[in-house]
Parts: sequence; structure tokens; C-alpha cells
Amino acid sequence: MPDLDELHREKKARIKAAKDRLYGSKTREKGLVIVHTGTGKGKSTAAWGLVMRTLGHGRKVGIVQFVKGRRETGERRFLERFSELVEIRVMGQGFTWETQDRARDIAAARAALAEAERMLRDPELHLVVLDELNIVLRYDYVPLTEVLTMLENKRPDLHVVITGRNAPRELVEAADLVTEMRLVKHPFREGVKAQIGIEY
Amino acid sequence: MPDLDELHREKKARIKAAKDRLYGSKTREKGLVIVHTGTGKGKSTAAWGLVMRTLGHGRKVGIVQFVKGRRETGERRFLERFSELVEIRVMGQGFTWETQDRARDIAAARAALAEAERMLRDPELHLVVLDELNIVLRYDYVPLTEVLTMLENKRPDLHVVITGRNAPRELVEAADLVTEMRLVKHPFREGVKAQIGIEY
Repeated sequence: MPDLDELHREKKARIKAAKDRLYGSKTREKGLVIVHTGTGKGKSTAAWGLVMRTLGHGRKVGIVQFVKGRRETGERRFLERFSELVEIRVMGQGFTWETQDRARDIAAARAALAEAERMLRDPELHLVVLDELNIVLRYDYVPLTEVLTMLENKRPDLHVVITGRNAPRELVEAADLVTEMRLVKHPFREGVKAQIGIEY
Repeated sequence: MPDLDELHREKKARIKAAKDRLYGSKTREKGLVIVHTGTGKGKSTAAWGLVMRTLGHGRKVGIVQFVKGRRETGERRFLERFSELVEIRVMGQGFTWETQDRARDIAAARAALAEAERMLRDPELHLVVLDELNIVLRYDYVPLTEVLTMLENKRPDLHVVITGRNAPRELVEAADLVTEMRLVKHPFREGVKAQIGIEY
């Protein structure tokens, strides 16, 4: 009879050896262009997780929020406590789901993009989050070509995360790491409202 | 000729009215069982984002990490700075990708599950993260039925996030909010190694 514990040990040893080989072959460092897209939850939330991780290492973060939420969020309150490591720009008087003025939205989007461009060249930052940039791209508030050029010209060792549903195909092609957050099940359908710490 | 700005305003006003109606119909508060699964990135990272959001509101968080990583992570360093609001248990001497001792892994998993069970009844916590619980379920280190019972008996207004690939079907059925993180593109394939602030 084979010993179950022995089989387990052998299997685990094989997995460990394969992982060690795999990790050993990965040697390049590179500032990544990361995209979180899809209709599910977790696109911006996972970006905040990367921010937390980066702050944990004592490195600096830049954030441009292209869509301003209706309420004060937990993440914004939280990040304000880290003003020495975090620089946040919220797209000014501009684009919320409330506005009905296209010209004003476009002006605000362009101003936010200029901030993003500046951050992507800032030698002090380790990570830049361009939150909901895909939304303003979707609305054609800023030209995609300009965003792609901006990414091409970013500091090579800087990581950048772009969030929002409907990431354009060309952006996905230009990115290094792309995750689609897919909605499997959502409690909104059962009349549950947005809740503190979860949605905001 | 229709005025483009006018059309835009009308469309945005219709969207806003529909959203207001939708949000107005959502009135229930409920502690959610949230699952982040799939083979993509962002499962634990999005849980850290929820932690950040919750801390931003000054609420307390409990975390059980069922898989202990090889290195000191940014999130762990970060959360240690919030010891008054965060309680973390890392599955003891136990389960890492390195161990090859099934009996020890099972004992560690059971001890971690007992911590989880206690946190799920703690009246002070707003959110509990059971990080990589799906992995120990996958390895049959703890029985799924026990996890489902534990979730049924949790404090009704407590939110819980369970992460890890291969969430069992029964867990997905029991959950309120399920997101699948789907890998679209990963730089590992191009020889880029795990990097600070991104993977750890």
C-alpha cells in the first residue's frame, strides 16, 4: 500500500522544485502597465490594494481619479492620512455621473490627463493609479492615441495601473498585465444597497 | 441639425434619472459573503483594497491568512502599523508552498479556521478577510461543510471576503457577491520577475 503522507510529500516536493525553477528563470525588472477591466467589482479596489502594498514598502504613489464619486469614500479618507507618500488629484469640478455638460467634462478630463502625464515622469513615484481612465476614454473625452503616447513615454521603471470597464483593445495590447474582473454574482440584484467599507 | 451638446445633456440626464431610481430601490443592509476567485491577479489585492476602505471609515478588520508567503509583504508591513484596528493571524508554523508535511498542514489549517470562526462572531469587526481559504479547501485540509456552517453562523451584519482560485461551487452558491479575476495577459510569460509593490 502506498503511504498517503509519503505521496503527498513527493507531490509537494515536485511542485516546489517546479516553482523554484520557474521563479529562477524570471529575472527582469520592468515598470508594468497594468489594466483592471471588466464589468465585475474589484477593479479600483485591487488598485487600492497595490497602493497599500507599495506604501507598506515606504514607496510613493500618485493617483489621478478621473471619475469623482458622489460621496466621501473610505479610500480617500484613508489616503489623506498618508499625504507624505501619496499625491492624489481628483478630476476637478469635472466629470461625475451627475454632470450634463460635455464641454466642461472634456476640459476636466484634459486637465486630469496633464496631471497623469506629469506623474508618469516623476522620478519619486513607484506606482501611479489612473483610476477610471477607461471611462473617459470610452466617452472620447481624451484621445486614446494621446494616452498610448503618454504610456510609451513613462519612466521605464514606474508601475502604472489603469482601471475601468471597457478598456480599449489598443490599451490591452499595450499593457503588460491585464485582468478582467468578471461579475459572477451581485447582491444589488436582491435589493441590497451600497454599503460602507464595501462600495465606498 | 440636432445640437450635439444638447443630445449629450439629455442622454446624461436620462442615465442619471435611471441610476437614481435604481439606487433608491436598494434599501437593505446586509453583511455580505464576498468571494474573489479565478486564475487572474487581484483576488487578495482587492481584499486589501476593501480593508483600506474599511480602515478609512475607522472600522475594525480581522484577517486570517491561510497561506503564508515566502517573504515579508508590503501589505503585512502596512497593516502592522494599524494594530489598533487590524487583527491578523497568519497560519502558524503551517502551510506554505514549501512544506511537505500533510499532517502538519492540516493541523495548521484547522487552527486557522478556529481563529476565523471566532472573528466571524466578534461584535467589534466590520470586515473579515479569509485570505486563500479556497486553497486549503482545494487541498481538503478543512471540510467544506464546516466552512459553510461557519458562514451561516456569522454575525449577520459582518462582511467577509474569501479569496483564492478554485472556489468550490457550493461556496459560490452560498456567497452574495462573487467576482472571477480572469487572466488576460501576464508579464511572467515574458520573463519579468515578481516585483516590489506589485506581487508582494
